[in-house]
Amino acid sequence: MGGVGAQAACRGLSASGRPGRAGRVQTARMPHLHPRAAAQESVFARMSRLAAQRGAVNLGQGFPSAAPPEFLLGAARGALGRFDQYAPPAGLPALRDALGADLGVDGADVTVTCGATEALHLLTLALAGPGDEVLMLEPVFDVYLPQVALAGARGVTVPMTLDPARGWQFDLGALAAAVTPRTRALLLNSPFNPTGTVFTDAELAGIVALARQHDLWIVSDEVYDELYFGPRPTSLRSLAPERTFTVGSAGKRLEATGWRVGWIVAPPGQTPGVLGLRQVTSFSAPAPLQAAVAAALPAARESGFYAGLRETYGARMTRLAAGLRALGATVFEPRGTYFLTALHPTWTAEGLIDSGVAVIPGEAFYAQHAAPAGLTRWAFCKSDADLDVALARLSQADQTVRL
Amino acid sequence: MGGVGAQAACRGLSASGRPGRAGRVQTARMPHLHPRAAAQESVFARMSRLAAQRGAVNLGQGFPSAAPPEFLLGAARGALGRFDQYAPPAGLPALRDALGADLGVDGADVTVTCGATEALHLLTLALAGPGDEVLMLEPVFDVYLPQVALAGARGVTVPMTLDPARGWQFDLGALAAAVTPRTRALLLNSPFNPTGTVFTDAELAGIVALARQHDLWIVSDEVYDELYFGPRPTSLRSLAPERTFTVGSAGKRLEATGWRVGWIVAPPGQTPGVLGLRQVTSFSAPAPLQAAVAAALPAARESGFYAGLRETYGARMTRLAAGLRALGATVFEPRGTYFLTALHPTWTAEGLIDSGVAVIPGEAFYAQHAAPAGLTRWAFCKSDADLDVALARLSQADQTVRL
Ligand SMILES: Cc1ncc(COP(=O)(O)O)c(C=O)c1O
Ligand SMILES: Cc1ncc(COP(=O)(O)O)c(C=O)c1O
Repeated sequence: MGGVGAQAACRGLSASGRPGRAGRVQTARMPHLHPRAAAQESVFARMSRLAAQRGAVNLGQGFPSAAPPEFLLGAARGALGRFDQYAPPAGLPALRDALGADLGVDGADVTVTCGATEALHLLTLALAGPGDEVLMLEPVFDVYLPQVALAGARGVTVPMTLDPARGWQFDLGALAAAVTPRTRALLLNSPFNPTGTVFTDAELAGIVALARQHDLWIVSDEVYDELYFGPRPTSLRSLAPERTFTVGSAGKRLEATGWRVGWIVAPPGQTPGVLGLRQVTSFSAPAPLQAAVAAALPAARESGFYAGLRETYGARMTRLAAGLRALGATVFEPRGTYFLTALHPTWTAEGLIDSGVAVIPGEAFYAQHAAPAGLTRWAFCKSDADLDVALARLSQADQTVRL
Repeated sequence: MGGVGAQAACRGLSASGRPGRAGRVQTARMPHLHPRAAAQESVFARMSRLAAQRGAVNLGQGFPSAAPPEFLLGAARGALGRFDQYAPPAGLPALRDALGADLGVDGADVTVTCGATEALHLLTLALAGPGDEVLMLEPVFDVYLPQVALAGARGVTVPMTLDPARGWQFDLGALAAAVTPRTRALLLNSPFNPTGTVFTDAELAGIVALARQHDLWIVSDEVYDELYFGPRPTSLRSLAPERTFTVGSAGKRLEATGWRVGWIVAPPGQTPGVLGLRQVTSFSAPAPLQAAVAAALPAARESGFYAGLRETYGARMTRLAAGLRALGATVFEPRGTYFLTALHPTWTAEGLIDSGVAVIPGEAFYAQHAAPAGLTRWAFCKSDADLDVALARLSQADQTVRL
């Protein structure tokens, strides 16, 4: 596909590392940045940068190899020149209505954001502040803890356990034990990046009972809601509509991660508070892309687009899992998301990139507990060609090592 | 132009006010949002909503009536299908380089954001926290103070004075007197919304001396850098490169306010700290629109696009000013921006919308001092037809009142 080369450039190297302006005359005293502005490159951006620099196959950052579907691109071409000025901060009416119809909620409860990342940033600001705690599971998606810190609150993680035979295990008792009088919200992700867990209805019922007992908000990150390989995931909102904020992503759903259109579905009556913040974080989301997503959501449903993705990605997951197992890895097949996790005694992300394959190291998802040794995350939202080249390179590296 | 109707829909009513889900069973105890999540609709969004609902000519919110130029739209059409996946958090390399060339800075010092609004949000987070003060002028663009509050810091404003004969006056002594040991940054806007002030080189030199004396950062909001009617504005960065963060907006420059592509130019060495935050507020800006802006920036320069805008808007400013003066207003013609301010003893934004014209009330720009009585802000980035209809409606209302 003609687009692939440019897509690679899109996530490519950062602006030319031209020499800085050393030697410029500066005054003696200079202010400092606030300590929260710590220079720390996102592991996803870093691995994509390294992959581009080193010519590695990028099975790290979660974006597809392919271009988005034509029904989305065509809608965007048609929106340009028509939807170019400020959208309302809550989102284009057509998109709020389309999301309402797609998700079975009232469009008035929808707030459109610059990707799910901004949705999560807004929700931590809206729900927690100094003295508050937000409870989440570990491994943890990398923005959650820094976002909670930006809100002045404390993120507390409860570890999932990884049993090589049974895979990733959720422990409701451990979650309950971590609730304190300061806990304000549970932040959950199902389908769960990176574990691939889809919580069962029984687990969700336990989570909801816990939230009701302790008077907690629930933030349910459901950006992979259409990417599942077993039973369809239950949305937490259907079980606790009065306290659940759902987060979604058009980038993940429609294979356009760079478009930055995400959303929040708030409990009835809570949208105005979210909007008060939304106006000052970035005011509104990109209008022409919102208009395109509004048109594409019903088209995706009607054309069976999501079912097609599940089928394609299910096959790629099986192919990648088999290839990694043949190389000696223990593979944990996901129930949802487009990632799998694997254990291998000698693999590290650094070593793998030397072999020409970029993945995400397990430690990237751990902050308060130790990562399982030898854990890596592999994205399979990539082309068959990418997967095959990656497996061939690994197998060659494996043979070289054994010689 | 065929696009105008859709552009109106774009900024139109929020999602259908379908009846809420009253009557749903809720548990007795419910958590509360954090107090910072106060429901307060942006005055710009509110006036655009009212204008659409009431059929008023919208001279309120600052977005053009017309569609963006074809060189921008064509570049976006060409980017779709090629730049759809995550851009690096700092921005597409091509856009960072194009901005570097356009602004005469190193592309490595550029961070691309979701509009200038997010740039300002990031900078307040990066520069100030609890116990810190950020100093700014009043009238004040509406997001500055809430953004400083989100960073946990205190915004302190120093009033401009409005002399009916001499117009808006800046008082460096008053600014200097407001500096305390807690002051961390000066947040300035030139060309200045809503006053239209373009600071003189002498004023800028005084501001820089103050910042150097007290070891302050400078945030220079220059979103209207190409919209001026007198001498070309001097960028503060050219006077204090070691401490100035410049904020810009492709939406304002290229007549596409809904695209949400803005930028920060940081002092050398300060970009990594900004990026650490940028990754968690929204991760990255919309990739296909970034690619289009990268192509459009040199095209805009080469084709004289900005000079054309200045000419068109200069003529509209004169036309609107004359019309308002004929109706008895005292008009303050701006040196830059696409807004003018006016005083009229009986005009209020509420009264004017009853007459079919939406404007922004002066009080919207005041938080810590009293707004001048009878002050309104008028956007003239609108079509001649819009301006003529607005003036005709005002003149008719005026005659009705006099009858
Ligand atoms: C669990 C999870 N939440 C949120 C996001 C961010 O989504 P978006 O690209 O819409 O900001 C991601 C992206 O990988 C994710 O994996
Ligand atoms: C002074 C000023 N700064 C920043 C902005 C926000 O610009 P953007 O639309 O790029 O977020 C505006 C918009 O009106 C403005 O007037």
